Amino acid sequence: MAVAAELSPSSHTKSTRLSSSQLSLCSTHLSYLHRRALRPVARPRNATISCSVNQIQAPIAVQPEDPKGKSDCYGIFCLTYDLKAEEETKSWKKLINVAVSGAAGMISNHLLFKLASGEVFGPDQPIALKLLGSERSFQALEGVAMELEDSLFPLLREVKIGIDPYEVFEDAKWALLIGAKPRGPGMERAGLLDINGQIFAEQGKALNAVASRNVKVLVVGNPCNTNALICLKNAPNIPAKNFHALTRLDENRAKCQLALKAGVFYDKVSNMTIWGNHSTTQVPDFLNAKINGLPVKEVIKDHKWLEEEFTEKVQKRGGVLIQKWGRSSAASTAVSIVDAIKSLITPTPEGDWFSSGVYTNGNPYGIAQDIVFSMPCRSKGDGDYELVKDIIFDDYLLKRIAKSEAELLAEKRCVAHLTGDGVAFCDLPEDTMLPGEM
Amino acid sequence: MAVAAELSPSSHTKSTRLSSSQLSLCSTHLSYLHRRALRPVARPRNATISCSVNQIQAPIAVQPEDPKGKSDCYGIFCLTYDLKAEEETKSWKKLINVAVSGAAGMISNHLLFKLASGEVFGPDQPIALKLLGSERSFQALEGVAMELEDSLFPLLREVKIGIDPYEVFEDAKWALLIGAKPRGPGMERAGLLDINGQIFAEQGKALNAVASRNVKVLVVGNPCNTNALICLKNAPNIPAKNFHALTRLDENRAKCQLALKAGVFYDKVSNMTIWGNHSTTQVPDFLNAKINGLPVKEVIKDHKWLEEEFTEKVQKRGGVLIQKWGRSSAASTAVSIVDAIKSLITPTPEGDWFSSGVYTNGNPYGIAQDIVFSMPCRSKGDGDYELVKDIIFDDYLLKRIAKSEAELLAEKRCVAHLTGDGVAFCDLPEDTMLPGEM
Repeated sequence: MAVAAELSPSSHTKSTRLSSSQLSLCSTHLSYLHRRALRPVARPRNATISCSVNQIQAPIAVQPEDPKGKSDCYGIFCLTYDLKAEEETKSWKKLINVAVSGAAGMISNHLLFKLASGEVFGPDQPIALKLLGSERSFQALEGVAMELEDSLFPLLREVKIGIDPYEVFEDAKWALLIGAKPRGPGMERAGLLDINGQIFAEQGKALNAVASRNVKVLVVGNPCNTNALICLKNAPNIPAKNFHALTRLDENRAKCQLALKAGVFYDKVSNMTIWGNHSTTQVPDFLNAKINGLPVKEVIKDHKWLEEEFTEKVQKRGGVLIQKWGRSSAASTAVSIVDAIKSLITPTPEGDWFSSGVYTNGNPYGIAQDIVFSMPCRSKGDGDYELVKDIIFDDYLLKRIAKSEAELLAEKRCVAHLTGDGVAFCDLPEDTMLPGEM
Repeated sequence: MAVAAELSPSSHTKSTRLSSSQLSLCSTHLSYLHRRALRPVARPRNATISCSVNQIQAPIAVQPEDPKGKSDCYGIFCLTYDLKAEEETKSWKKLINVAVSGAAGMISNHLLFKLASGEVFGPDQPIALKLLGSERSFQALEGVAMELEDSLFPLLREVKIGIDPYEVFEDAKWALLIGAKPRGPGMERAGLLDINGQIFAEQGKALNAVASRNVKVLVVGNPCNTNALICLKNAPNIPAKNFHALTRLDENRAKCQLALKAGVFYDKVSNMTIWGNHSTTQVPDFLNAKINGLPVKEVIKDHKWLEEEFTEKVQKRGGVLIQKWGRSSAASTAVSIVDAIKSLITPTPEGDWFSSGVYTNGNPYGIAQDIVFSMPCRSKGDGDYELVKDIIFDDYLLKRIAKSEAELLAEKRCVAHLTGDGVAFCDLPEDTMLPGEM
């Protein structure tokens, strides 16, 4: 069983020839196996480590030495512990695959343990974590997988790490796309859009090829709205509605700032919309938001503060955190990702809504079609959402929404070569990166 | 109301004079107030920032300008949102104070968000987090508090940060002592024992003076067994039984390694004891542990592996992780702290047990009195525990337990000046720090 031949030459990957006796025992090291040998399509430069925490001593109905025709079972994964045979797991739901990119980074380091603990998908939802990293981060990915093993989460039935999105995204029900290149010294926003756009174009293609046909995709890596647009454009077989750009941390921060100003606990603030781009053009909407069920403007009489200071306070939060804490806000970002997922798998409380950057086609607000724009959403808890209809606008709000819309249209022109819309023309007038983000 | 005069001159603390109008509104900045002016006993070099996320616009039954006689209400905390008035919180338990030292560190950065989310104490247990840091880490503490605010955890009703354990530990029901000085270059274990011992002596005194009379104390900072001993010796009014040294990560890693070797999922491994010191003399007990309810030695026939490799695999895990991941295992340590707390507040499953470093007085195993030794415990879920009686020993196990016991007795002699046992005599033959720990 010569599986080593096509392994990547990266210094971080190792080629290993596994004997059948080795396959029938799972060592304490992650076991290395390359699936490409078993697939008909050759792609260059990929290496995958498959690590399952639930192997059994003897393979079940599998002959590792003759893996031909086993389209859903390769190497060490053929030894996967049989969930169905587990008496105590009979009441569990079917295992779902959750793919996470940037899995060796700090946001993931918080998020993965939340996913594995059952905090996100519930105590009856076993999950398989599929972690996408890079050659550079490969050893760190192994470390993450080891820490997940040591945490003994009962619901975490499988961990797989790799650098090829076509493998890692296979059958993914959720894809949480956190990884993105940070902006290098002197790099313009246009350069960042291009370099990250290429990553998200590739990941969109991979999702289109191998993910669950109803995969939900949450883009966190910046610039996240346009990355999400590029991703969905490259995944024509997945509903565009399934793609989200994370603006939930902005929503959470906006709620906190309104609560602090009003002198109420933050759970009294509802109906908070972040409109537009996850950038400094974003619009935290104090016109529709409520405090204790009343319009914010009736509770906070200081309208000058709302118009002139509130948005800045929300947007500068990340920068202040970097100053204080010396690093970006990984923990609260991970919390907001959990919130964003939970908002899609839990019915939205009556009369409330949440914000998410979603595809604008068919939106009832007159926002330009064919971009990813943060808007107010409600969900029945089935993973899907509807845009909220009963929204009020005034000139102040509309004007600011129009500015963010114009920015996203400009970003879209910048990445036309990645969305199939022809030749890119990039004319971004100013740097609108949020403080504290890269 | 001159509260600024006694503020620490540290560059990280700020003196602020708050007017009553400032007090009646909570700004987005953390509000600074020094409680020492209100207390009869003067202690030097302390500064406290009180940050509450649940202020209301107008003070309740409090006159901030005349705080005299308000023994449980100072400054901005007099504006604390009244939990009892909250309709939706009627079914909640009474608020508990959870104090965490080393709160600006990486383990805490994982742990605090678990505590605040309700994952540890349950969805009906509101908590106040009291965070102990140092002057050096003070700004980072502010950053942590800000991220906690931005996370909008409904159960987190209050956050307080400070550098004086006499303030931070007040009325603490749980004290999670994570902070410890890392070993400097060339520092011997004896030096580390002394420098950290002084911290834990001070913290023991503070717990003794101000914490809940039944506070549960979990020591994580190394060397944790002897730190816990010093702490309990300096807190004579708190039951010695309430002090724990964390060996749960060792237990979790041992379970994982046995599961991997046996080819079973890790939830099949039970009755895992870590005996002794959280050091390389610790004894992961494969004689009493079970896999699928059977003795480990009946399931894993490779007894040579159990005797010669298993312990090393458990102990080297932290070092391997540092190599892979570039930093120590903060995430899985935080998970193991959660496990340790949950084991005390949840009834132990029938027939099983967990490990914790606890006070040896009255132990049924013949282990020397008056040290903190990891042993098998069971709990009714009331925060208390009993040592497990039906344990078997063989010569191999006894011999190794004796070695760890001798080490802890030597460490105890090393810190006699800190435990009230006379003059210290330090004679530690070898470095037994676990790989990957400091």
